Amino acid sequence: MDNLASRPTAAFQPVPETEFYPAGRLAYREAMARLAGPVSIVTSDGAAGLAGCTATAVTSVSDDPPILLVCINRASRNNATIRTNGRLCVNVLGASQEALARTFANGELSISERFAAARCLDRAAGSPALEDATANLDCDILKIEEVGSHSVFFCTVRHVRIAGNPSGLIYLGRTFHSLATNQT
Amino acid sequence: MDNLASRPTAAFQPVPETEFYPAGRLAYREAMARLAGPVSIVTSDGAAGLAGCTATAVTSVSDDPPILLVCINRASRNNATIRTNGRLCVNVLGASQEALARTFANGELSISERFAAARCLDRAAGSPALEDATANLDCDILKIEEVGSHSVFFCTVRHVRIAGNPSGLIYLGRTFHSLATNQT
Repeated sequence: MDNLASRPTAAFQPVPETEFYPAGRLAYREAMARLAGPVSIVTSDGAAGLAGCTATAVTSVSDDPPILLVCINRASRNNATIRTNGRLCVNVLGASQEALARTFANGELSISERFAAARCLDRAAGSPALEDATANLDCDILKIEEVGSHSVFFCTVRHVRIAGNPSGLIYLGRTFHSLATNQT
Repeated sequence: MDNLASRPTAAFQPVPETEFYPAGRLAYREAMARLAGPVSIVTSDGAAGLAGCTATAVTSVSDDPPILLVCINRASRNNATIRTNGRLCVNVLGASQEALARTFANGELSISERFAAARCLDRAAGSPALEDATANLDCDILKIEEVGSHSVFFCTVRHVRIAGNPSGLIYLGRTFHSLATNQT
């Protein structure tokens, strides 16, 4: 799973709580397991075909103009497809969508097998939009920054859809958590 | 509050759930209120003095080398200070630290008033590290991208500290949520 695969369950040698230590790969992963990530499914369609993967590294950058960013491992097959298509859709998942998140994070499933488990809205244009998302943000890719092992896709948001209740699916401590909200 | 200030409680005209609509500023904010954000306090110290602000736009970018990013509004006084200092620390907040998050998001408090409410670890070097964080990631700024209204600080993580239980403080639906975990 993009950005989740980089958080192994491998044992990490604990150190006294008050100590700082050099940020090697394992120590960094351990610290990052403490930073909650909102779970989305990033989809794309176009000249290079369908793409779809679960992502936890999505964040808002600017609201005027509306721009968000998505980090995707350069080794992911989805990276090249999304890049060529030049567009993507961020489908924000709600509290009850862990199964869908796991499907789109399953490296043993083909892209078509992943989409077979999802319901897509019937749209004339744009990237696939998942019906069960709490929000869909349909984007054009503005620019791509290569940073270490990942590509950072800066995306101009063109169209949005808001649906259902505003609950959240969260990835924290290397596992999924459901967050219900009381807001409408 | 950086990145929270951009999410107003202003009324938004609801539209049918199955409809997409153009991503204007309000529609984008409404959709982004559906994307959960992990709550951290970003601190810095150096030639330009102390800085400290609550942030919800922090994400991991790469684990080899370890690089994260932080988005901070260009209009924030903290932006210029952090930029000049050339370094920052991401202090990840746990489930019980909403009060601290609100203090560092309070535009009416001076930087010294904010820090008066926090306990900092005694360190010889680096940016201030908050004792009550569940993780501290001490960073040097690698590069800064200006994107729309915000600056994206790409940061090389130099040292990390992990402390306490791995709970999470989450910002979703324009309010804080506590997420307890059962992991140690």
